[in-house]
Amino acid sequence: MPSSDKCSSAAPGPVPKGSIRLYSMRFCPFAQRTRLVLNAKGIKHDIINIDLASKPEWFLMKNPLGLVPTLETPAGEVIYESAITCEYLDEAYPEKKLLPSSPFAKAQQKMLLEHFSKVVPYFYKIPAGRNKGEDVSELEAEMKEKFAKLNEFLVNKKTRFFGGDSITMIDYWMWPFFERLEFLCLCSCLVNSSELKKWKDCMSEDPTVKATTHSVDTYKGFYKTYTEGKADYDYGL
Amino acid sequence: MPSSDKCSSAAPGPVPKGSIRLYSMRFCPFAQRTRLVLNAKGIKHDIINIDLASKPEWFLMKNPLGLVPTLETPAGEVIYESAITCEYLDEAYPEKKLLPSSPFAKAQQKMLLEHFSKVVPYFYKIPAGRNKGEDVSELEAEMKEKFAKLNEFLVNKKTRFFGGDSITMIDYWMWPFFERLEFLCLCSCLVNSSELKKWKDCMSEDPTVKATTHSVDTYKGFYKTYTEGKADYDYGL
Repeated sequence: MPSSDKCSSAAPGPVPKGSIRLYSMRFCPFAQRTRLVLNAKGIKHDIINIDLASKPEWFLMKNPLGLVPTLETPAGEVIYESAITCEYLDEAYPEKKLLPSSPFAKAQQKMLLEHFSKVVPYFYKIPAGRNKGEDVSELEAEMKEKFAKLNEFLVNKKTRFFGGDSITMIDYWMWPFFERLEFLCLCSCLVNSSELKKWKDCMSEDPTVKATTHSVDTYKGFYKTYTEGKADYDYGL
Repeated sequence: MPSSDKCSSAAPGPVPKGSIRLYSMRFCPFAQRTRLVLNAKGIKHDIINIDLASKPEWFLMKNPLGLVPTLETPAGEVIYESAITCEYLDEAYPEKKLLPSSPFAKAQQKMLLEHFSKVVPYFYKIPAGRNKGEDVSELEAEMKEKFAKLNEFLVNKKTRFFGGDSITMIDYWMWPFFERLEFLCLCSCLVNSSELKKWKDCMSEDPTVKATTHSVDTYKGFYKTYTEGKADYDYGL
């Protein structure tokens, strides 16, 4: 089910048996990780979008941290933190596994996620710096360097994706940020990282990616409301 | 095998078949997590202690990040980041599992680790502040608050340990920091957290904990060299 509904302020009913619920925000890259996994594995689910600027009381009762993504099962179990939600889904719904079964290969994906988590802040810092009229050339150089490392990983691995020749969990963990390169005007940081660029092109053709994405114009429109301090989480609906 | 050997500057031989190697530092709480798991599961291993102030070239060749804990298998596979090394060991050596098999119970342990990772900085910030003669009363109040939350978790769960009535992975993930409360003079932050205090007392009786610990005096002695900027990683040997 696509994440197309307007933010809900009314308390939702119980999670139907045989289904799982995701509390999400349509433009959140972390929540998109969970949406990608739900979609890729064909897990029956519903999505409730949360107005992050005004979190409903009933949501804070379920998760006092008020984070998206948050999963809720029919038994009332609550799971949050994007990587934890994804791994939970991969284990609770063992068909079409996205994480490798080999302990070392799984550890490799998690180590790569750790590396990548040090790249994530650049997706925020560079646009924020530009908006304030700051010189971000040093940050851009650092991001280029970090992308070059990811590129090197692919070159050494000699596969199309980060876990092999098909898409696995690590690709979905990294993808939401690369999807945002265009509207954040960060594509120039991919120069000299041709394998990473090829990976990005392959990923954008994936049906699961296509099912969870927004157009560059929609992202731009939302981001404008966000930077103006009046984030419209329902933008484009 | 206890982590009792002096730091080695000479490149070690290959990891023997049927064994696994840990690159460690005797006083590192993160490396202690891995030592606890190796010990609790009875995994055959050797330990090579790294002089973190002067990391040998051969170590940086194995792990360019130069982090401890780092595991190395006989096949030359390298695994780092403490929680990842622990989960790898639990999966690669499936006897005496420390993580629960239920996907939700496992996710709960990981969410608790996420919470706890926000407590970890206080173990560094408060002593560092005191050493500089700063007023740390606000930080202490915050740490007390965070401990009270952990205490509340135990009260609600009604079990002796964080995963149930026996020790599981989450207890070993948190323990190394509580072991350091005495020599860091942070025990007062446990006031009003009686269940957490009881947990600490139970943990200190665990044979695996006893096998990986140092005396308060040894910790104090090492910490003195550390705060004076001349960390003696072989202190007490």
